[in-house]
Amino acid sequence: MARWDPDGRTRLQQAALALYSERGYESTTVAQIAERAGLTERTFFRHFADKREVLFFGSDVMQQQLTDAVASAPESASPLEAATAGIEAAAGLLEERGPQVRTRQAVVAASPELQERELTKLAGLASALAETLRGRGVAGPAAALTAEMALAVFKIAVEQWAQGDSKATLVDVIHESLAELTAVTSQQVRR
Amino acid sequence: MARWDPDGRTRLQQAALALYSERGYESTTVAQIAERAGLTERTFFRHFADKREVLFFGSDVMQQQLTDAVASAPESASPLEAATAGIEAAAGLLEERGPQVRTRQAVVAASPELQERELTKLAGLASALAETLRGRGVAGPAAALTAEMALAVFKIAVEQWAQGDSKATLVDVIHESLAELTAVTSQQVRR
Repeated sequence: MARWDPDGRTRLQQAALALYSERGYESTTVAQIAERAGLTERTFFRHFADKREVLFFGSDVMQQQLTDAVASAPESASPLEAATAGIEAAAGLLEERGPQVRTRQAVVAASPELQERELTKLAGLASALAETLRGRGVAGPAAALTAEMALAVFKIAVEQWAQGDSKATLVDVIHESLAELTAVTSQQVRR
Repeated sequence: MARWDPDGRTRLQQAALALYSERGYESTTVAQIAERAGLTERTFFRHFADKREVLFFGSDVMQQQLTDAVASAPESASPLEAATAGIEAAAGLLEERGPQVRTRQAVVAASPELQERELTKLAGLASALAETLRGRGVAGPAAALTAEMALAVFKIAVEQWAQGDSKATLVDVIHESLAELTAVTSQQVRR
């Protein structure tokens, strides 16, 4: 039996993404992923519950880092500032993975089943964020709204960043989106 | 064969909602819905493709009314004002259905499968709204962001309205949420 291979997970993730991207998520089997990575199916299942899990692996870590950042924002931070600290922390995780994130976005965009799952994960992040904001004393409706806005900014920024060829970091794109958010809502006030 | 019954659809919807609410969505069959409504399964399938469709029936009409209202907002309207006209139109449809909407919300909230589908429908509304805003000359990122915000406001307002016992109309709750949105984002600016 092969010894525990710390790079196994990474190799499986890369193989899976490459195959999903080449021949589509639906048409790829776990056997093919394992073969491409030079590993066994058994090793695959030691790392991931199923072939969908490869694409959502790490979302628990992301939620934890997001909510930790929100909880530990300065007391003086406004709800949106605290939420922004959260999505910046999540963005940091995605930036570490770099080009994989772009491939992943394209794979998810090509499958209604995966898109539906992705929306559910984002909604889960929004709920966790809202709860953390309420823990900071933000009232219910404001917490829910701030969380939804922050996740909307995050989602749109990731899409833009993953599609774009610019050198901008994801955090830069998030800041641009937040500025846009402010501009859009202040137009409402001005009138 | 029974003649076309204009009330059949309404009776089937009421029966389905009552049963989903009483014994759960998963445990309810089409046969039970038809029986409760005093109609046949065949009649059920003349109105709805499946038992899930009862809960999402009318979402095409809602999308059409939403985008029509956005497209026909005054030229001087800001993106958020145009989007608000859209969600007000959608809210109008829900208010017509009244108490059914509350039962429906509770049924959807109890089923992960239905929640996932609901999120997909909301994302579809957001895409259609963003496209309509781009048709009004709003730039891509601002259009996407405005659409996501408007749908977040809509979603949260519907939840609040459906849960609440107050006499406030859904449109009132939407206006409160929009005011909250402005307050939350302007805090960011002030700092």
